[in-house]
Amino acid sequence: MLKNLQNYKEKCVGFINEGKVASYIPELAKMDKNLFAISVANKDGSVISTGDYTAKFTIQSIIKPIILLLALKDNGLNVVKNIVGVEATGKPFDAFNYSDQALTSEHINPMINTGAIALCTLIKGNTYQEKFDRLLSLHKKICKNDSLEVDTKVYLSEKATGNKNRALAYMLKAYGLISENVEDVLDFYFKACSISITSVDLANMAHFFAFKNTNFNGEEIVNKKDIQNVCAILATSGMYDGSGDFALNVGMLAKSGVGGGIMAISPNKMGVGVFSPSLDGKGNSVAGIKALELISNDYDLSIY
Amino acid sequence: MLKNLQNYKEKCVGFINEGKVASYIPELAKMDKNLFAISVANKDGSVISTGDYTAKFTIQSIIKPIILLLALKDNGLNVVKNIVGVEATGKPFDAFNYSDQALTSEHINPMINTGAIALCTLIKGNTYQEKFDRLLSLHKKICKNDSLEVDTKVYLSEKATGNKNRALAYMLKAYGLISENVEDVLDFYFKACSISITSVDLANMAHFFAFKNTNFNGEEIVNKKDIQNVCAILATSGMYDGSGDFALNVGMLAKSGVGGGIMAISPNKMGVGVFSPSLDGKGNSVAGIKALELISNDYDLSIY
Amino acid sequence: MLKNLQNYKEKCVGFINEGKVASYIPELAKMDKNLFAISVANKDGSVISTGDYTAKFTIQSIIKPIILLLALKDNGLNVVKNIVGVEATGKPFDAFNYSDQALTSEHINPMINTGAIALCTLIKGNTYQEKFDRLLSLHKKICKNDSLEVDTKVYLSEKATGNKNRALAYMLKAYGLISENVEDVLDFYFKACSISITSVDLANMAHFFAFKNTNFNGEEIVNKKDIQNVCAILATSGMYDGSGDFALNVGMLAKSGVGGGIMAISPNKMGVGVFSPSLDGKGNSVAGIKALELISNDYDLSIY
Amino acid sequence: MLKNLQNYKEKCVGFINEGKVASYIPELAKMDKNLFAISVANKDGSVISTGDYTAKFTIQSIIKPIILLLALKDNGLNVVKNIVGVEATGKPFDAFNYSDQALTSEHINPMINTGAIALCTLIKGNTYQEKFDRLLSLHKKICKNDSLEVDTKVYLSEKATGNKNRALAYMLKAYGLISENVEDVLDFYFKACSISITSVDLANMAHFFAFKNTNFNGEEIVNKKDIQNVCAILATSGMYDGSGDFALNVGMLAKSGVGGGIMAISPNKMGVGVFSPSLDGKGNSVAGIKALELISNDYDLSIY
Repeated sequence: MLKNLQNYKEKCVGFINEGKVASYIPELAKMDKNLFAISVANKDGSVISTGDYTAKFTIQSIIKPIILLLALKDNGLNVVKNIVGVEATGKPFDAFNYSDQALTSEHINPMINTGAIALCTLIKGNTYQEKFDRLLSLHKKICKNDSLEVDTKVYLSEKATGNKNRALAYMLKAYGLISENVEDVLDFYFKACSISITSVDLANMAHFFAFKNTNFNGEEIVNKKDIQNVCAILATSGMYDGSGDFALNVGMLAKSGVGGGIMAISPNKMGVGVFSPSLDGKGNSVAGIKALELISNDYDLSIY
Repeated sequence: MLKNLQNYKEKCVGFINEGKVASYIPELAKMDKNLFAISVANKDGSVISTGDYTAKFTIQSIIKPIILLLALKDNGLNVVKNIVGVEATGKPFDAFNYSDQALTSEHINPMINTGAIALCTLIKGNTYQEKFDRLLSLHKKICKNDSLEVDTKVYLSEKATGNKNRALAYMLKAYGLISENVEDVLDFYFKACSISITSVDLANMAHFFAFKNTNFNGEEIVNKKDIQNVCAILATSGMYDGSGDFALNVGMLAKSGVGGGIMAISPNKMGVGVFSPSLDGKGNSVAGIKALELISNDYDLSIY
Repeated sequence: MLKNLQNYKEKCVGFINEGKVASYIPELAKMDKNLFAISVANKDGSVISTGDYTAKFTIQSIIKPIILLLALKDNGLNVVKNIVGVEATGKPFDAFNYSDQALTSEHINPMINTGAIALCTLIKGNTYQEKFDRLLSLHKKICKNDSLEVDTKVYLSEKATGNKNRALAYMLKAYGLISENVEDVLDFYFKACSISITSVDLANMAHFFAFKNTNFNGEEIVNKKDIQNVCAILATSGMYDGSGDFALNVGMLAKSGVGGGIMAISPNKMGVGVFSPSLDGKGNSVAGIKALELISNDYDLSIY
Repeated sequence: MLKNLQNYKEKCVGFINEGKVASYIPELAKMDKNLFAISVANKDGSVISTGDYTAKFTIQSIIKPIILLLALKDNGLNVVKNIVGVEATGKPFDAFNYSDQALTSEHINPMINTGAIALCTLIKGNTYQEKFDRLLSLHKKICKNDSLEVDTKVYLSEKATGNKNRALAYMLKAYGLISENVEDVLDFYFKACSISITSVDLANMAHFFAFKNTNFNGEEIVNKKDIQNVCAILATSGMYDGSGDFALNVGMLAKSGVGGGIMAISPNKMGVGVFSPSLDGKGNSVAGIKALELISNDYDLSIY
């Protein structure tokens, strides 16, 4: 059981200056580079934290595992695999490059933007509002936080400037992988990425994946195998094209977001949430990765 | 001077069944596969034709040389080259594949969709209606046909289904190569591609490029060097990734469109327009290329 | 502790006809498609087997983790990472495609041919014979089998026909990633791939990685962190561009070879070796993967 | 008829410092950067020159049109097209990048290294010595220079260091596009690239293509259509991925070599040879292109 986090902050804040805050979404660029937080949800569910653990930031790509989980729950693995593949692509998170010109499901990974956008269309609901309500509801349960909500400023900023995602979405439509109205799908996706969270929420989220909690107040709302499949995909693709280095240095299952958060899973042991908005060239939190590396080494958390 | 075209039709219609009508735009798919026309504008400007030379079809990509010409006239070569390159890309007309992830002008050719869409933003005019009026006006003069107009059905069909072009346009915007409203730009582009023409119009258009007519009723509306630059680009890229084969077999400067037209230029000798909507795998009219091959051989038109 | 393997054979042999024996090396094409074996090395080191567990086959790519391990031991991680990256490439095992023209270490993964060939040059030894003797010696210890030797027929067949590997090696040299004589390096690599093994050897090899045995008769010949790093790379890249699917369906750390073998690691639990030379389109044993899927499900071996 | 070249030298030498001498072959790196020559073969065959027109340099890629011509003569267009395509590839002269993994003839252009190496195997002869003697013999006739010979130092330097070409050749063999001994083929290719010439030789060579001389002392040794096909391919691919810019700025048919030479064809008008070893980033002579641009503008030589 991990009890003291204080010293990790001291050892990590020095790395903040090796990266920089995401600039491609205007509203994200305003974040305070020096914020830093670690939260750990131990086996018993108790959470300890250090640093700016009450500071809010947007979840960004860390919502992708939840989108995938709900798509799996609503459709099953086979339907999901008709639209997205499960192999690492070796490409950046917003890659355009489909070298054989015919975009097919096997070129798409659910942890990169193209795949996550495609999966939004698989979430059940009569309207995109209903779909989003279902996603947020599941996310609240997983984070044990009923007050989660969308950061409207970031959402509108992404919606106004997210032309690369627009291009990816129209490409999916052009190749018949999605059929719905592109702006509706993107609106859902931009909202989902803009859910406002803290490091505590991420620790709880990681705890859910670490212990594969399928039961919420007596109701089995998700399937254990679906959770495990999400974890398996995180192993190869959760840290974008930095997943290999992360496997060597940390060895946890993790998902990062350009908001500066990382959710890190130690199966059957603990869930960790870190937050530090200064990013490396691959879009991962520099000081966040450092913190996870130290914790993993100290508590022998590598799954390999 | 070319006087008789009758025998070319007989020799070419047999090739119609080797291709098929474009299907990716619903309205284009309705074209009669058996239509076939050749028109030749001789040095003196007189035009002779055979076959369905009164049949109308949409110009599609054959408008690209006019878009490029007007962009050059309005901005000069240096400004144009900041946005599009002039090298053949070795890729299909609607290619997505920019292998180094950072889309720059040198990856774009004005004869493929990405480049032509980008150039639309360089045409001067206070509104997109004004820009389009200027393009159509120049096109009418070049084709010596004041009644040219947009085929509304095809235009609306392209606008409704042109998601690949939408993706390409948002990609241009995401990489900062265009800054205007994407739907405005695409509306202009879809309209421009939907101008309704005949083989006679194409012959006149080719005649303009063949003789570099810069003077219209005493007014020098275009620059000879700009026309020549457009011709030079047609040599490497006018027939998409079939430009090399066309150079060997025909040796004229040409531009094809998926509507089934080909405009073929024999510098200082003649302009040829052919029409046959059955296309090969690269989007070029099968019987149209055959006709040009026969004419080029008979009249020694290869520039090489 | 896994005690009975009999029923797995029955459940798996039906999948043999879904694949085919590797044909690109003439000598490999002669293998009997119907051979099938499973061996399991339990925690205490005892091995149980079923099927053709005495049948010999060449190790092929399963030697790559040993090459990497010895390169790490001889040079440390930093030197190794100057030559090969650790990210999944999303490409087949013999891929040529380096899209930005400048081949650098980050494009190369030690589990694909280019990377493994490059690593051969890092193994210490005054001559390539000495280097190979050191590799084979380590491999014998890891497999607890002192009689391992090269299958000369397969080695000579690969050497005679391995032109794609030759091309990859000359590319490495052209880009300055290796500097030694290409034929010497390839001779080493072809020999290493042609070591003749059984499913029992693979089970022992997997057991070594599963329990990170660093101590051989009192001598610590390898470093625990190096072994763990090899395991981490197997997670993202061990099953080529089928690693993602394997993570979902099996969840063990594994390396396959086109000889039909798979070495599968269950950390701290057991090591498994399977053999069935009928391969799927990605070069992995079809019935072998099926066997691992069944065993993993029955004994809850997924690490995710 | 072009009579005076003196002023072109003055206008061009200033551009020498914008480029640099080829460094990738050690022996080439020794060339004197300040050498500069222009030779023009007028319609009547008379040659005028300026500058260092007696300076010798190696032909390098300018031999590619002769290799293609002899391959066409020996096999016909259809056989040649089974091995090389005729489309521009949009890639550098030594490109590796075949994005769909299966290298087929349509990915290869005879003016880039891969294609030229492949074509060497199509030249008839019982031995590679005999093949080379036939190539050199044809080249001597075309250049009207019986004393042409290989520069042994450059040839041996290329042979010793040409690992990228070795990689390309083994790739051709791996994909079944060539079947002969790779070192034999490369030896032929390196020798062919190392033929020592002057700007006068290039002017005569260009004159041959410009007037399609098929008759040598009463013997028709080449076919007019084959010569024209070579010229057509030069239009799209002769100046590597700078062919488009060259078409706009010069508009002649040309082939450059990293030795600093350019052979430039003005069909039915003249042949031009330029030499200046300082190259731009695409491997073309900087001052040489400038000279051709000035001459083309002065004498209206653009074919477009």
